[in-house]
Amino acid sequence: MSKAYNIAVLPGDGIGQEVVPEAVRVLKAIADIYGHSFQFEEMLVGGAAIDAYGTPLRDEDLEKCKQADAVLFGANGGPKWDNPKAEVRPEQALLWLRKGLELFANLRPVKVTDSMLDASPLKPELVKGVDLVVVRELTGGIYFGQPSKRWEENGQRHAVDTLYYSEEEIRRVVRTACDIAMSRRKKVTSVDKANVLSSSRLWREVATEVAQEYPEIEMEHILVDAMTMHIMRAPKSFDVIVTENMFGDILTDEAAMLTGSIGLLPSASLGARVKENGIRPGLYEPIHGSAPDIAGKGIANPTATILSAALMLRYSFGLENEASSIEQAVSKALSEGKATADIVRDGKALSTREMTDVIINYIY
Amino acid sequence: MSKAYNIAVLPGDGIGQEVVPEAVRVLKAIADIYGHSFQFEEMLVGGAAIDAYGTPLRDEDLEKCKQADAVLFGANGGPKWDNPKAEVRPEQALLWLRKGLELFANLRPVKVTDSMLDASPLKPELVKGVDLVVVRELTGGIYFGQPSKRWEENGQRHAVDTLYYSEEEIRRVVRTACDIAMSRRKKVTSVDKANVLSSSRLWREVATEVAQEYPEIEMEHILVDAMTMHIMRAPKSFDVIVTENMFGDILTDEAAMLTGSIGLLPSASLGARVKENGIRPGLYEPIHGSAPDIAGKGIANPTATILSAALMLRYSFGLENEASSIEQAVSKALSEGKATADIVRDGKALSTREMTDVIINYIY
Ligand SMILES: CC(C)[C@H](C(=O)O)[C@@H](O)C(=O)O
Ligand SMILES: CC(C)[C@H](C(=O)O)[C@@H](O)C(=O)O
Repeated sequence: MSKAYNIAVLPGDGIGQEVVPEAVRVLKAIADIYGHSFQFEEMLVGGAAIDAYGTPLRDEDLEKCKQADAVLFGANGGPKWDNPKAEVRPEQALLWLRKGLELFANLRPVKVTDSMLDASPLKPELVKGVDLVVVRELTGGIYFGQPSKRWEENGQRHAVDTLYYSEEEIRRVVRTACDIAMSRRKKVTSVDKANVLSSSRLWREVATEVAQEYPEIEMEHILVDAMTMHIMRAPKSFDVIVTENMFGDILTDEAAMLTGSIGLLPSASLGARVKENGIRPGLYEPIHGSAPDIAGKGIANPTATILSAALMLRYSFGLENEASSIEQAVSKALSEGKATADIVRDGKALSTREMTDVIINYIY
Repeated sequence: MSKAYNIAVLPGDGIGQEVVPEAVRVLKAIADIYGHSFQFEEMLVGGAAIDAYGTPLRDEDLEKCKQADAVLFGANGGPKWDNPKAEVRPEQALLWLRKGLELFANLRPVKVTDSMLDASPLKPELVKGVDLVVVRELTGGIYFGQPSKRWEENGQRHAVDTLYYSEEEIRRVVRTACDIAMSRRKKVTSVDKANVLSSSRLWREVATEVAQEYPEIEMEHILVDAMTMHIMRAPKSFDVIVTENMFGDILTDEAAMLTGSIGLLPSASLGARVKENGIRPGLYEPIHGSAPDIAGKGIANPTATILSAALMLRYSFGLENEASSIEQAVSKALSEGKATADIVRDGKALSTREMTDVIINYIY
């Protein structure tokens, strides 16, 4: 029954280099228990690749990622490559990967368990039970629209970026959101700025059309500015939130903070492609970034990356039991108060490696 | 010593029509006590103007607003005019006013007083003492860049918006932020998305240059996505936040929610122009919007509009004592638990008019 799966492993920069190997250890444990074969191929990406090759992602490595069954990604960036004037920047790797692999739907689940209530900046009664997923459009909008450039004219510097969407780009990601909502509470909140942006008016129009394909789904439309307030005031009222690339970037970070720590939050980026063997390639990454301030100390929280690996098993490989096994192991560890420095309350903070050991130990 | 001041009064739609007249009553009380002469000229704007004239703001009314010493604005929009496909939309009035009056700096102070701690969605220890101002660029960026349009091609709909900035547009608003910070805690947080947007890389470059003109100011740069987290987790760490138009729209609403109610928050929009008599024209509006769900019931909270009138006295007319007089009257009312339905805790909710009466009564 078991297949061989090829996983491209891209630790990247900062704590990416510490947490990704731990998630690989977890995947190896799963392979042992369930009798799967995971092949890992590691590549340099981001600042590390700039240092080694002068580019944040080599063409041949992008090609390998396209061939892979899934990509496990750490984080990109750090003070060393922080010059905003540079032509070559670590973050480009991630953008090229998203675009190159046509990963148009970024899923960021935010679930607040009781053990997180203390850590949340919000009052516990507001966040207890929060269980939402943000579906962010990932290959369009202002991240990729052309022109995006700067120039000089009459001795003045000018710069422009372009927010572009076609109806097809909107439709496919809103459909992904609706599909996900169908297996959840059947509510979709579409976020836009239709009172100002032409692209948002098109977004709202197409989203409304898609909603008609899903008669059971209740769709609401909320302006992005108001949405930042609703997320703080009534996060429990949301099930699936769908929005364009930049708004998604902003709102997912806000929603993440409901848990009090972004060290816990995984993400999955999916496209439309399904291979003949049923594998649906995707990219999996923690949302926390490279955290240069704590990099190299062995104290980073591996949980978000481990949970990202679980999402890989579920969404790309269809291995639901294996995914759940990791998720329950993480839940168990957290509910017992096992914690790295970023989330520890009482007791001793575990190292990155120790935290992973606890989780692996709870995998059945 | 006292001058005559011409104030354009634009209630607009929804609760705008209820709260603006109350702020006018407060201004009249100030005029009586301090011996000023305020001339009010009321105009239709937004949905109300669309119904009456077929346009959200007539040219002649825009002209009158340009002549006025200050504009007191209520809110725009409502379900009646909510069709995103419409060519004529209420919100255009506000955008035309901002652009027409060249009001490039939108100031939104957020101050959490002890009487608000219960209402805030955040844990009290996080918000107690928050005192920040967001300075939002208001006449540039994606709100006004061209092209902003939709079209059809090969049977597909497409839409585009354009985010454009010149260095001068960035410089003047960052300077405004630094000027404000000089009379406060001398810290400026500039927010951008320099890892993705060309315009943000220019923003960061110019902001850094401006900071060099203010050696006493400590300037930091934070990415907009991370900023949504910092606002929730450590709002006390901010003094003055400066950012481009769309990010400002989003972040001001998030910051507003720290207080638990947007019914309390005023805003001021300023340009560079100072008249010969020292008056600096500006536009003053509550940030809450038209709230169609409670419009027409006489229960809307007039506080944000009354505080906006206070900002008018301070920033446009230089009447600091009069402004403070209103602000302390509001503080006193709130700290005594006087409240409209949106913020009432124990006791009876006051009507819009009763709340204003209490405040007027406390003006000295
Ligand atoms: C690193 C950066 C380019 C990226 C983005 O803006 O998409 C990050 O913030 C994210 O959300 O994954
Ligand atoms: C009504 C709308 C056009 C406006 C904006 O987006 O600027 C509002 O949200 C605001 O913040 O004043």
